Amino acid sequence: MKHYYEASYGSRDYEELLLQETIFHNANGYIGVRGCLEEGLPPGCDTIRGSYINGFYDFAKMSQAEKLCGLVEEKQTMVNVADTQTILLKVDGEACRLEEGEVLEGARVLDMDKGITLRRFRYETPQGKQVQVEIRRMASFALLSLFTIEYRVKPLNFDGIVEFVSVHEGKVENYSNPNDPRVAGERMVHLRQESCGVRDNVSYIVSSAVHSGLGVCTATAHKMTPALDQEQEWVEETSVKKQFSVFLRAGQTAVLEKYTVFADSIRSQNCWQTAEEEMGRALSCPLSEWYEKQEAYLKDFWENSALEIAGDEELSRAVDYNLYQLLQSVSKDAYGNIAAKGLSGEGYEGHYFWDTEMYIQPFFVLTNPKLSRNLIAYRYEILEEARKNARILGHKKGALYPWRTIMGRECSGYFPSGSAQYHINGDIAYATVAYYLATGDLEFMAEKGAEILYETARLWLDVGNYYNGTFQIHTVTGPDEYTCLVDNNYFTNVNAQYNLHWAVKIYRLLKEAGMEEKAVARTGLLPEELRAFEEAETHMYLPYDEKLGINPQDDSFLSKKMWDLEHTNKEEFPLLLHYHPMYLYRYQVCKQADTVLAHFIFEDAQSMETIRNSFLYYEKVTTHDSSLSTCIYSIVASRLGMKEKAYEYFGDSAKLDLFNTHKNTKDGIHTANMGGTYMGIVYGFAGLRLKEQGLSLAPYLPEKWESYRFCFFYQGSQIQVEVDREGTRLTLKKGAPVTVFLFEKEYIVT
Amino acid sequence: MKHYYEASYGSRDYEELLLQETIFHNANGYIGVRGCLEEGLPPGCDTIRGSYINGFYDFAKMSQAEKLCGLVEEKQTMVNVADTQTILLKVDGEACRLEEGEVLEGARVLDMDKGITLRRFRYETPQGKQVQVEIRRMASFALLSLFTIEYRVKPLNFDGIVEFVSVHEGKVENYSNPNDPRVAGERMVHLRQESCGVRDNVSYIVSSAVHSGLGVCTATAHKMTPALDQEQEWVEETSVKKQFSVFLRAGQTAVLEKYTVFADSIRSQNCWQTAEEEMGRALSCPLSEWYEKQEAYLKDFWENSALEIAGDEELSRAVDYNLYQLLQSVSKDAYGNIAAKGLSGEGYEGHYFWDTEMYIQPFFVLTNPKLSRNLIAYRYEILEEARKNARILGHKKGALYPWRTIMGRECSGYFPSGSAQYHINGDIAYATVAYYLATGDLEFMAEKGAEILYETARLWLDVGNYYNGTFQIHTVTGPDEYTCLVDNNYFTNVNAQYNLHWAVKIYRLLKEAGMEEKAVARTGLLPEELRAFEEAETHMYLPYDEKLGINPQDDSFLSKKMWDLEHTNKEEFPLLLHYHPMYLYRYQVCKQADTVLAHFIFEDAQSMETIRNSFLYYEKVTTHDSSLSTCIYSIVASRLGMKEKAYEYFGDSAKLDLFNTHKNTKDGIHTANMGGTYMGIVYGFAGLRLKEQGLSLAPYLPEKWESYRFCFFYQGSQIQVEVDREGTRLTLKKGAPVTVFLFEKEYIVT
Repeated sequence: MKHYYEASYGSRDYEELLLQETIFHNANGYIGVRGCLEEGLPPGCDTIRGSYINGFYDFAKMSQAEKLCGLVEEKQTMVNVADTQTILLKVDGEACRLEEGEVLEGARVLDMDKGITLRRFRYETPQGKQVQVEIRRMASFALLSLFTIEYRVKPLNFDGIVEFVSVHEGKVENYSNPNDPRVAGERMVHLRQESCGVRDNVSYIVSSAVHSGLGVCTATAHKMTPALDQEQEWVEETSVKKQFSVFLRAGQTAVLEKYTVFADSIRSQNCWQTAEEEMGRALSCPLSEWYEKQEAYLKDFWENSALEIAGDEELSRAVDYNLYQLLQSVSKDAYGNIAAKGLSGEGYEGHYFWDTEMYIQPFFVLTNPKLSRNLIAYRYEILEEARKNARILGHKKGALYPWRTIMGRECSGYFPSGSAQYHINGDIAYATVAYYLATGDLEFMAEKGAEILYETARLWLDVGNYYNGTFQIHTVTGPDEYTCLVDNNYFTNVNAQYNLHWAVKIYRLLKEAGMEEKAVARTGLLPEELRAFEEAETHMYLPYDEKLGINPQDDSFLSKKMWDLEHTNKEEFPLLLHYHPMYLYRYQVCKQADTVLAHFIFEDAQSMETIRNSFLYYEKVTTHDSSLSTCIYSIVASRLGMKEKAYEYFGDSAKLDLFNTHKNTKDGIHTANMGGTYMGIVYGFAGLRLKEQGLSLAPYLPEKWESYRFCFFYQGSQIQVEVDREGTRLTLKKGAPVTVFLFEKEYIVT
Repeated sequence: MKHYYEASYGSRDYEELLLQETIFHNANGYIGVRGCLEEGLPPGCDTIRGSYINGFYDFAKMSQAEKLCGLVEEKQTMVNVADTQTILLKVDGEACRLEEGEVLEGARVLDMDKGITLRRFRYETPQGKQVQVEIRRMASFALLSLFTIEYRVKPLNFDGIVEFVSVHEGKVENYSNPNDPRVAGERMVHLRQESCGVRDNVSYIVSSAVHSGLGVCTATAHKMTPALDQEQEWVEETSVKKQFSVFLRAGQTAVLEKYTVFADSIRSQNCWQTAEEEMGRALSCPLSEWYEKQEAYLKDFWENSALEIAGDEELSRAVDYNLYQLLQSVSKDAYGNIAAKGLSGEGYEGHYFWDTEMYIQPFFVLTNPKLSRNLIAYRYEILEEARKNARILGHKKGALYPWRTIMGRECSGYFPSGSAQYHINGDIAYATVAYYLATGDLEFMAEKGAEILYETARLWLDVGNYYNGTFQIHTVTGPDEYTCLVDNNYFTNVNAQYNLHWAVKIYRLLKEAGMEEKAVARTGLLPEELRAFEEAETHMYLPYDEKLGINPQDDSFLSKKMWDLEHTNKEEFPLLLHYHPMYLYRYQVCKQADTVLAHFIFEDAQSMETIRNSFLYYEKVTTHDSSLSTCIYSIVASRLGMKEKAYEYFGDSAKLDLFNTHKNTKDGIHTANMGGTYMGIVYGFAGLRLKEQGLSLAPYLPEKWESYRFCFFYQGSQIQVEVDREGTRLTLKKGAPVTVFLFEKEYIVT
């Protein structure tokens, strides 16, 4: 089955083209280039023209309206590092631009087997000259620094001169729009150009981020077929332009290959030198060879990661798309992570959230444990910053991870729905444990995981307090941002309980293996702390309402007014754009799954009866204004046997970006939701669970489907799951036999 | 008894002089001029050189770190309008400045009977020449636009030239200090100078506030004795300088009188013309006549307002000082109000808070009902803005007063301890009712008061909701800002209850008098709304803890951790400067009286037993980091018969500014606390109460005192209260006989 997505566009589809910048962006986890037109949009049209490096940031001032102790006044922001995608085309002296002539049969393709995007169109100039154009772009998985553009032009009805002007521009800015409260309102200069020049036919621009001081070097080189009649070059202060002119007869094709490499000072000592070396590698073989490597990489990816669905073409394509984006977004080293928008746009400023741990890690844990480990290693790298963050928040011990960050420092401007989400600590602990459960990698726990678990567990002891014999957690915010600074948020409490439990458990596992010393020495963990963890775990207060038979979202949730969702105008969603936060806080209304998420993640904490009651209760007051919501509702609906509902929610989740249902995909993809799509099938339809007690599955086939199939890794083995009308078939694809509970019955897959 | 305060200063007392700028400022409710030295402080010394007009403001941007719907992004700020206090003195060519020669016997006096400040010092130049200087300043109560400086110089040991350079400078800025989070950190230009010139020996500078567009004109004129040898004038773009030189023999005195008038475009159509007219008035009689008028005004003030204490000189002086400051601070018209710092400094940016209604109105209600009515009229003027504010906060009906404002729009940058303090509505209702109870002025209620009561009552219905048969109020902040966004704050609920009660009551009183129509027509009040008010009043939920026998501050307060105040370092107070707000929210720790304030204001809502329990409970967790706290603890201690405690708290309150106990009096006086001092005696020691049931007193004499005495107005009559070791004596000073409950026994004062 081909992994493929295609869309069309025409000369006047400016809004669609803005959206396509996201949809057809090229990324490999290190670099991301938005799918802008090489020639640009007509002046005045909105475009977000950017190239980004995972983990590369500048600092920016974030003034608080009132200064209060400890409020964050500086954030990190992902920087648009250079423009290397500009190539201007002239046909016999006429510029090929949307606003000049006419685009005929414009099409854009994302080929997820080849790992490239393709733009294909016929263009007619005002004078009636037609050319056929094909532009392939690739962010290479084999050489992470490399981005390529292959630009092919063929005159159709004339003989004449085809001219390319290829631009390498260092002076770029991040996107700003004073009319949109969700992106930066003011223009900010984040880069200072340090040098710009050409050596051995390669242009180099070195810039540094104004406030962080981080350096970046971009280099471009070209290969042209046929051999050139004319080639000119302009080196300016912050840019290099190169002109290629060639005379073609009708039917002949000119091909310009443009190679860009990126290097940054986070990962290399001298980024100019690194760029030079990487460019040497890039040019050492023909482009076709890079294409082959790309295809091989993706073959491997799909073999391990595909969710093959038969019976719903549209959904299937959306699922493919989502998984591919996760691969494009995930950092391949521990200097970066997965931004809320991946490397596809500037929404949320390139920040990493809990999205990684609770929504995306499940995919990598099961399909690529090495990348999963990287993501935890990143959290380990920023543990020291998390300790500092805890001190800023007043805590004398432990670590509190930042709610949103790039390099480890908190970037939340509004703490009630930012830093107050202490569950981030539990989320990271949860993902660390999940990695351990899936891999049995005790060595990594000894080296990094245990320290994360101890320090996050410690914090809960300093946050919570005993009252009436129970351990309570006050004044925090749960996942649902429509009620903030609440007491005993059910999700948070059960998540803290799990964190405390596993801090002790990992300590014991390491001790049994004689590997406990390193993490204990590094954290100064005391035996009485372990006892205190257990004590708090045992006495953790989990609010429960006898009358409704549900877990209240928090202590006061059920005594609030009900929001009348039925009679709310469609234009008023998302509510957060139309109501003052305090007004929302006063209602029983949820932006997203909160208690219902707890019922998925920590399903053993409650009876099925309670989970069902909760689901039905919260469903009525949830707006799904967050993109992190429907996938969770789908999974829990599956668990409760509400198959139709599960399928509907799953569809909403799967199609979010490709169908732009949240109307903001132009700012970037929603990576958490994409991970949620994966979970919707694997945890939802297939009922997979990874627990202390082992691996279990309880698959069912959605009514509309004929079958689905996927593979996953478990403790070094790889298992294939096939579900069709006949039932479920498990196959051991690699490694030693594995014990699996299928519908609560124990099997050994051999 | 003289009302008088004196302090000394020397050549190097820079910090003391900064403080004295506040302590010895001159104000009359319309204008305020800080008590800076005419010659200025040495370069590099901190000084806040300002002149202010009550109600005059500029708009300023207040960026939110994260943009959320309805958050305030523009504030008003009180503007430093001009510098007319600069007069430079030269003695035989040597400048008289702190950093040059030596100040000997420097003294500063506030004469509260004459209504002037005096600076008196002997100055020795580096060459050993000595002059005696006396400088009197006055902000006239008889002509509110007028500020005068009378500068007297007498050579003591030489004959020579004395030279004054008097400056009128229009280009001024507000104070900023990047190192102090409590005042503006960045320099802002708020004024644009429109014109500057001299006509008929009067200099005029017209400026306009950059963002509000409001205009201000200052004018200065001079009178010199003896007749001048030489007079020179420089008119520059934004300033006018005038030089006066005179040859004096030792023992002769030169006197420069400098007259400044202020006019603003809020109160007059053409402020240049108004300034000209006001200056005409100012110069129409000798300065001595203005001094006489000032003295007469103050004689009247003290006759009606004095709290005469025998037995504690220091406290007595502090009390005098505080009452005098209230007079200096209170607007004499409804265009202004009483800023948290009066007109004495830029702390809190000249904003009006609940301080007026809950802390200062009691003083004016009892001593000057006309000014009290003005203050309510101001609230009526901004009612339309309060309606708009309610809409911004999401409410479909009613009005919500801004937590801090000048012209009526909300200026809270951090809403959890700003706009969330919905009790401001009840506070304003409370003061409106208090004015009615003290005066019986039903006409004012028909005209303005009822509309305020209806619109504020309406809001409670939209904020609260019924749960378990009770009317509850969620997600608001009570007076204590160390716990924010809480549910069922006891103070707020009982305050809302009173508001709802009086909305109905005033309607009925007006209806009985056939005067109800106007307010009903203007608000569209419906009969079912009145029923809903009563319903909510009746079912108002007032949290009560059976075990402790106290009213919990809110639903979750008692389940939080106790802050260990005993083991907190002194340097950590005020806590808000050392702990993240969210950290504080998690503790049982109070910045100020909250439930205890409710027990004073609404004492009939609970038994004495509960009030006693609450007092003792909250006392242990209150830091008094707010200046609004100790006075309330004093009053309630008095009510509970804890006389020593009451006296101690009272002393803390009375001395706050004169002894600079909060270390920030340099930024301005604490007007609310000053009102609290008045209440500490009248409501505390004398046990006065104004209720629906009538007027009552229950005085006692603090052990250390011999006697105390005060007068107050009640329903048009004036009563004098004298308390000494013999007992209490009530005398009718004016008007018809009055029924008073003295220790719960009914008397008629004739």
